[in-house]
Amino acid sequence: MTISAASPVCVIGLGQIGGSVVKAAAAAGREAFGYVRSARTFEAARAAGFTVFGELESALKQAELSRAVIVVATPMQAIGGVFARIAAFGGSCVVTDVGSVKASVLASAEEHGLAGRFVGGHPMAGTANSGWEAADPTLFQGAAWVVSVDEGVSKEGFAQVAMLALGLGAVVVPALAAEHDRAVARISHLPHLLAAALANTGAAGGELALGLAAGSFRDGTRVAGSDPELVEAMCANNTAAVIEALDEALDRLHAARTKLGLTGEPGPIVRSGHAARAAYERLAQDRPEIAVAGLEGPDWRERLAEAGRRGAVLRSWTP
Amino acid sequence: MTISAASPVCVIGLGQIGGSVVKAAAAAGREAFGYVRSARTFEAARAAGFTVFGELESALKQAELSRAVIVVATPMQAIGGVFARIAAFGGSCVVTDVGSVKASVLASAEEHGLAGRFVGGHPMAGTANSGWEAADPTLFQGAAWVVSVDEGVSKEGFAQVAMLALGLGAVVVPALAAEHDRAVARISHLPHLLAAALANTGAAGGELALGLAAGSFRDGTRVAGSDPELVEAMCANNTAAVIEALDEALDRLHAARTKLGLTGEPGPIVRSGHAARAAYERLAQDRPEIAVAGLEGPDWRERLAEAGRRGAVLRSWTP
Repeated sequence: MTISAASPVCVIGLGQIGGSVVKAAAAAGREAFGYVRSARTFEAARAAGFTVFGELESALKQAELSRAVIVVATPMQAIGGVFARIAAFGGSCVVTDVGSVKASVLASAEEHGLAGRFVGGHPMAGTANSGWEAADPTLFQGAAWVVSVDEGVSKEGFAQVAMLALGLGAVVVPALAAEHDRAVARISHLPHLLAAALANTGAAGGELALGLAAGSFRDGTRVAGSDPELVEAMCANNTAAVIEALDEALDRLHAARTKLGLTGEPGPIVRSGHAARAAYERLAQDRPEIAVAGLEGPDWRERLAEAGRRGAVLRSWTP
Repeated sequence: MTISAASPVCVIGLGQIGGSVVKAAAAAGREAFGYVRSARTFEAARAAGFTVFGELESALKQAELSRAVIVVATPMQAIGGVFARIAAFGGSCVVTDVGSVKASVLASAEEHGLAGRFVGGHPMAGTANSGWEAADPTLFQGAAWVVSVDEGVSKEGFAQVAMLALGLGAVVVPALAAEHDRAVARISHLPHLLAAALANTGAAGGELALGLAAGSFRDGTRVAGSDPELVEAMCANNTAAVIEALDEALDRLHAARTKLGLTGEPGPIVRSGHAARAAYERLAQDRPEIAVAGLEGPDWRERLAEAGRRGAVLRSWTP
């Protein structure tokens, strides 16, 4: 396994994320090709000038020849099956994925004997749309792209996936799979449940309530417009962490409810929430940067995970 | 009391909302003047060319002479004191307000003997900013402006306040004070509590979580950036209705929590939330319209309240 700053990319599954990886990689001057099961997407991607295989094994063969990074970008429930076929095919290419949870995907990679080649990934990008038609070569510009630093990850594998993410315009957030899952439950899965609760409670007030709704309701319910299947899949794939985040939110809301009943005021939730929002805005504007030059030594994974916990990002890879 | 399509306007209190009423009324060609306690705002409004009185009684005297609508636009906690002074002054002008809750303001007007002249109002407009500097003559364009049709409201008073709201660019939503308060608890006060819970729970995940936060967290926590004092005042002024809305949201979230623990799926909250958000978007795009021509007869208040419950609005006043 050798580190190349611009490895070819073999993308398995050409939905919005996989399609955007192919388009962004090609736009960045990388060799990029893919496999897709859908005949319609196959034709559309070919018509757009991309190299697409209709057989997974043909794509994997080309990946071996090109020494490509393999990006598994199928829906979550199909990832295990793809891992099984990659394992059966053999080969030595680095394998990554773009799934929205990481611990279960890592377990699946280990189960199929891919541990030594697998490096989990998660670009925090995507819109309410889906499919190849919604793929956009600029989708990852400025986005955070989580790259796993779990125990089995090799430095070469991490470097290759990180350089791919950087090459597509993202910044890299190193994280352990389990820590990633707990974090996204709080900031990506919980918001969908709260938005659903707000939308339902607003609508229960009838058209008078919905007709008076302005900015706070509009913003607070926006993600209730997401495809319900995707939201249900988020919960199903990350249940323990979603429950942990929801229980914390419920504890805070119960404390406010109790205080409201006793005093007519909601208690500290409002002021601490204001401070939390300010902390989020500060971090978004000014993130600490990780220098690759400092990653020598056997504890590089631990140091990257620690930097990720501090909100730090890799912006470039210049060893 | 006579109905005039463009009554002069006497605004008590020149913060963001009161200042916007003065500016928008002047821009619409109405005679507009005001009273403000703050010497700094007094000077700023005068310097901008507006007629401002430094004594409340002088403003009320001018209001009587001009047959103006009096708009009380002070902070909520000062409204009762202003009502007392209006009652002590006497006169016959219609009195309205712009407070964010309506039942307690109505009770205060009745307590001070203003019932026959009072028509509660609430423009659903305003930004995170405050004060005369944040006043904007276009603030009410397209906004919903609730006008009370409670029992004591006269048709002439309703018409004068409705025509003022329409003249400043708003659409009029007729509603009973208590129904208004329950509605805004759902769509305006509850969103602030849920945003605070989300911001706190996100921040409890540390910089890793805040650093991975994207659109769903950003939108879901936006109003956590509001001035905490304003949010606490919302709760204090509308406690019973806020508790009702919060309890409903908690019930829905608890049902989701229970379902998640048993099945890994959140249950119907997601699909019904999706439908609720779609209903909100449909209503925002296409609201039923109320025709003034149909408002003859003694039950005009009940019919307007019923229309408001259906999400209908007055867009013009052409009897």
